[in-house]
Amino acid sequence: MKAEIIAVGSELLLGQITNTNGAFISQKLAEIGVDIYYHTVVGDNPRRLDEAIAIAQRRADTIIFTGGLGPTKDDLTKETIASRLGVSLVSNEEALVEIKAYFQRTGRLMTDNNKKQALVLEGSCVLPNRHGMAPGMALEKDGIRYILLPGPPHEMKPMFEQEAIPFLLGMLGTSGVIASRVLKFYGIGEAELEDRVQSILDKQLNPTVAPLASPDAVTLRLTAKAESLAAAEQLMAPVENEIREMVGEFLYGIDEDTLSSKAAELLLNRGLSVAAAESLTAGLFLAELAGEAGISAALKGGVIVYDKEAKIEQLDISRTMLDQYGIVSKECAAALAMQVKTKFNSDIGIGLTGVAGPEPHDNKPAGIIWIGIALYDGTVETYKLSLSGSRNSNRRRAAHYALYYLIKHLQ
Amino acid sequence: MKAEIIAVGSELLLGQITNTNGAFISQKLAEIGVDIYYHTVVGDNPRRLDEAIAIAQRRADTIIFTGGLGPTKDDLTKETIASRLGVSLVSNEEALVEIKAYFQRTGRLMTDNNKKQALVLEGSCVLPNRHGMAPGMALEKDGIRYILLPGPPHEMKPMFEQEAIPFLLGMLGTSGVIASRVLKFYGIGEAELEDRVQSILDKQLNPTVAPLASPDAVTLRLTAKAESLAAAEQLMAPVENEIREMVGEFLYGIDEDTLSSKAAELLLNRGLSVAAAESLTAGLFLAELAGEAGISAALKGGVIVYDKEAKIEQLDISRTMLDQYGIVSKECAAALAMQVKTKFNSDIGIGLTGVAGPEPHDNKPAGIIWIGIALYDGTVETYKLSLSGSRNSNRRRAAHYALYYLIKHLQ
Repeated sequence: MKAEIIAVGSELLLGQITNTNGAFISQKLAEIGVDIYYHTVVGDNPRRLDEAIAIAQRRADTIIFTGGLGPTKDDLTKETIASRLGVSLVSNEEALVEIKAYFQRTGRLMTDNNKKQALVLEGSCVLPNRHGMAPGMALEKDGIRYILLPGPPHEMKPMFEQEAIPFLLGMLGTSGVIASRVLKFYGIGEAELEDRVQSILDKQLNPTVAPLASPDAVTLRLTAKAESLAAAEQLMAPVENEIREMVGEFLYGIDEDTLSSKAAELLLNRGLSVAAAESLTAGLFLAELAGEAGISAALKGGVIVYDKEAKIEQLDISRTMLDQYGIVSKECAAALAMQVKTKFNSDIGIGLTGVAGPEPHDNKPAGIIWIGIALYDGTVETYKLSLSGSRNSNRRRAAHYALYYLIKHLQ
Repeated sequence: MKAEIIAVGSELLLGQITNTNGAFISQKLAEIGVDIYYHTVVGDNPRRLDEAIAIAQRRADTIIFTGGLGPTKDDLTKETIASRLGVSLVSNEEALVEIKAYFQRTGRLMTDNNKKQALVLEGSCVLPNRHGMAPGMALEKDGIRYILLPGPPHEMKPMFEQEAIPFLLGMLGTSGVIASRVLKFYGIGEAELEDRVQSILDKQLNPTVAPLASPDAVTLRLTAKAESLAAAEQLMAPVENEIREMVGEFLYGIDEDTLSSKAAELLLNRGLSVAAAESLTAGLFLAELAGEAGISAALKGGVIVYDKEAKIEQLDISRTMLDQYGIVSKECAAALAMQVKTKFNSDIGIGLTGVAGPEPHDNKPAGIIWIGIALYDGTVETYKLSLSGSRNSNRRRAAHYALYYLIKHLQ
């Protein structure tokens, strides 16, 4: 299968929005082994869109369109395709019912041009839109597959995953399912992770194992093809176990887990509360944890103690200790964690101190960070980081490392 | 001028990265009035790249390439263009000196394949790379302009703005300069702003005035063409004044200003310090302000008081008052602001309380937020927000509104 993605929309050519749909669809196609040779972006202009389709027909057997399915006069994707393929547009009853229901539900007045959204290519398989009004379509004609998707990512993504992928798998003769599982790591670089699991990356075909780095995590995605979901999961299980044996110490979660969602889940499950004293991060740790709904049962609060005096006045940190070891020290991180735990009467206390940069501070270079974790059993653990990013990258990573160490203590 | 952008790189077709270069270049070309009809993305494959160039030659008179200028065997953009145009590649002395200097500076060993990066299209105008090694190129041949840029955005963007734009302006016969100025607004929606300045949007040709909404601000970009920078600025000044008269109350900054950079600048310039008591935002306000280098002189710190008991225990907020008015109230926001100001001995105190959602809380619906600002003169101002976003959008906007109101008090 040779695919091309055609994104339609003048706002893309004006640079008002970025073609993130192209990247999303590409990623998903790569996972099921479909090759993509070109992305094309074209404006809301039927002549130029028609030319783009003609070119794609010569070099691809699967053409995926995004955008231009809406109700306005600028939305011309299906009209242009219909005319090129010599196919009529017909009103789809289910889609029309859905559109009318949408207007009834939202209490808005349905104007005539909205009926246009229910028009579909005759003979196409209609892909329902669960997050908007314009339905998608899939059609095979003269050996070429055409898939039409809406432009807004929150409509396009679920439609592509839930409707278009199964259609394409059917076309590929794959009667089975594709299942995937994402393993999420922290505290290890992408290169080192790949190096440690190289033997698995080399040999795996089903499931495939693909590394991917995001700014704040490293992930391995397992993707298996099988006759059923259970069979696909059975293929993945031994590979996942092998990976856990190699690099399990850095694994913090799976699939949709984030550092903050995992930390919140563990705190709530274990009925433990947390408070934090933050210096360089100035609230990043607590603000990220507070992003999780339901966290109030576990989040006691904390203090932002940005300068030395605030540490002494707000948390009774010993001035003698700070004079002796400095505010960027193991001792200060431990004291912050213990004092905030006491002050907020929480089960766990977190202390964060360090040099965000760009300038050195307190005789320590930028990027030196100490994290303290005071535990329910009265002990306190400390961790040192030596980061080399920008001011805000160092701050963000300090907060993320604190979440990661908290998770490791709770697991 | 009819432009096409060709982005080269298999990682784009695999969805590993998004074609943000296409959006950036499009935006900049739109500003100088160049029409873009197509974006094409093609992999590191010389045959398919050659075909993409052949198509672009038929439909564009200006072709802008990004990517594929590096030292590896996958980097084939200039080789493919050279062969299609029948132009030789020649070693560029200045580029070679730069590359050697780069290796000397970074203490790394220069391998032979790095010399490849100094090869340029014969007869092209070489565009120096100030942030990497591979130089760019600009060439006109048979009525078509070819501009070659590196792929990494931090190398491409400055090269495009500083080198390619002047080249294109020269080609357009514009001997002058393009100057622009971005006005940044908060607390007003995009639609309302456009509505209020509609008379200006309608009539302006030089400078043009273009609205643009980002998730957390609304901006108007003025772009003027003139013989000199001074003349361009003279064209913009009266239009900016007119806009300020219409919607100046929502203007918080210009060009690169952000809410936090502007707040930090005003605090530092006026020698005033700030502390904050945050409930629903749980540190977002302080963390964002702390992102500004040099802020320690103005940032005293604060407390995260997430539940009712923490407010009472940590800030001596009156239980009777909270029982009477609730924790999401004008009275609570004012008390938080005043108490944290006293506790941290700061000039200004900020209090944030509200219902982030998704569930109602304390008998108030999600999205109701109160902000208190206790000032150096002993007064306290309060503001109510009724937001309708997700939990984290409400929290982020609450922190941004607090920065915005702080700016308005300091201006």
